[in-house]
Amino acid sequence: MAEHTIKAFDEEIDRLRGLIAEMGGRAEAAIESAMIALQRQDLALAAQVVADDKRIDAIEAEVEKLVIQVIALRAPMANDLRDVIAALKIVGVVERIGDYAKNIAKRVPLIMVNQRTLEPVSLLPSMGQVASEMVHDALNAFAARDPDLAVAVVERDTVVDDFYNSVFRTLVTYMVENPKTISECAHLLFIAKNIERIGDHATNVAEMVYYAATGQTLPDRDRGGAAAEE
Amino acid sequence: MAEHTIKAFDEEIDRLRGLIAEMGGRAEAAIESAMIALQRQDLALAAQVVADDKRIDAIEAEVEKLVIQVIALRAPMANDLRDVIAALKIVGVVERIGDYAKNIAKRVPLIMVNQRTLEPVSLLPSMGQVASEMVHDALNAFAARDPDLAVAVVERDTVVDDFYNSVFRTLVTYMVENPKTISECAHLLFIAKNIERIGDHATNVAEMVYYAATGQTLPDRDRGGAAAEE
Repeated sequence: MAEHTIKAFDEEIDRLRGLIAEMGGRAEAAIESAMIALQRQDLALAAQVVADDKRIDAIEAEVEKLVIQVIALRAPMANDLRDVIAALKIVGVVERIGDYAKNIAKRVPLIMVNQRTLEPVSLLPSMGQVASEMVHDALNAFAARDPDLAVAVVERDTVVDDFYNSVFRTLVTYMVENPKTISECAHLLFIAKNIERIGDHATNVAEMVYYAATGQTLPDRDRGGAAAEE
Repeated sequence: MAEHTIKAFDEEIDRLRGLIAEMGGRAEAAIESAMIALQRQDLALAAQVVADDKRIDAIEAEVEKLVIQVIALRAPMANDLRDVIAALKIVGVVERIGDYAKNIAKRVPLIMVNQRTLEPVSLLPSMGQVASEMVHDALNAFAARDPDLAVAVVERDTVVDDFYNSVFRTLVTYMVENPKTISECAHLLFIAKNIERIGDHATNVAEMVYYAATGQTLPDRDRGGAAAEE
């Protein structure tokens, strides 16, 4: 590329990375706010999380447009092209993470019983915390192209899976003993599952970062979830 | 582009479309087999669905490679470039649909009670059928660039959502009356949710097809699910 093209390309890549960082920050904030809304039964905050998800979707659309523009105008070579396509994949994953946070927030109004009677709720914020940190670190690993940080994210996924299995068992026991709370507990089950999926997606991002940085894939892990719930 | 480049480009696009059609066919088959495995308690078939998902993932990787190759070698112009990027997005969605089918199959061994006592199971195959047809039609709409077929897919999503809400209520009632089945019913809830998500993803594909064919977005619909379960 000519020098001015390289400069323009670098600027566009910086903008791309800036948008991804913003999107990641918003997804993290969405997870945290959704968990606070759940704990405090804060319907206004829950509604805010749902509304804010539109901005995450809008950033994804902006990244797509920018990627197409970069490819069309700069015709990046193999490695740069792969980076740009990877950015597209990563925003797709972050958009899904935002959706999971939104789905959690949407369930808050459906859990209207007095939560002090719903013990399993107390496990969820810590679980959400771990998942949200995984998202944070996965995007930092992406920004810094740091394979070690990526590995640390992947390893933490078992913590989220263990939480999930524990919440699942606790909720089932609780439902058996308190049949009146079954509907609320079903929503809590889905919330736990959404957090578990957020962990999976942070792991996906980390795996992509690791592959981009090292050219190696991490050994295949079985994603926690269905098979582990007994 | 020079004539031989256009020919090579067209051949690559054909291969891309062939891969997407194969992937879609496999995703449909996975949904159907997962539902049969669930109904018949066929653990071998369930295991087969889980194993076959690797092929769906492999096709996605192949499409990604081909897309990067097409862009790098052919430098397609704006419209063609947008088509190629759309192909990348669509295989991402089909991969997710395959994952949902795999997740359903993974739950089959966890639902070991005599199913004749679990009435809500009987609704799921019809629900799966509608979702699987939506996937089929969404990919046909993509292949034929048919916006009318795409609209028909989007409209059918409410059928899947209605099924989901009905299954949710039935399962909750059933759990209240039969606390011993709560664990199994929780897995059925997740299976219903997975089918509902398959419908959402088929809808996403249809919306992309509609946009690509007409340049217009369909009016925003609220995806069924959380908010509707009461």
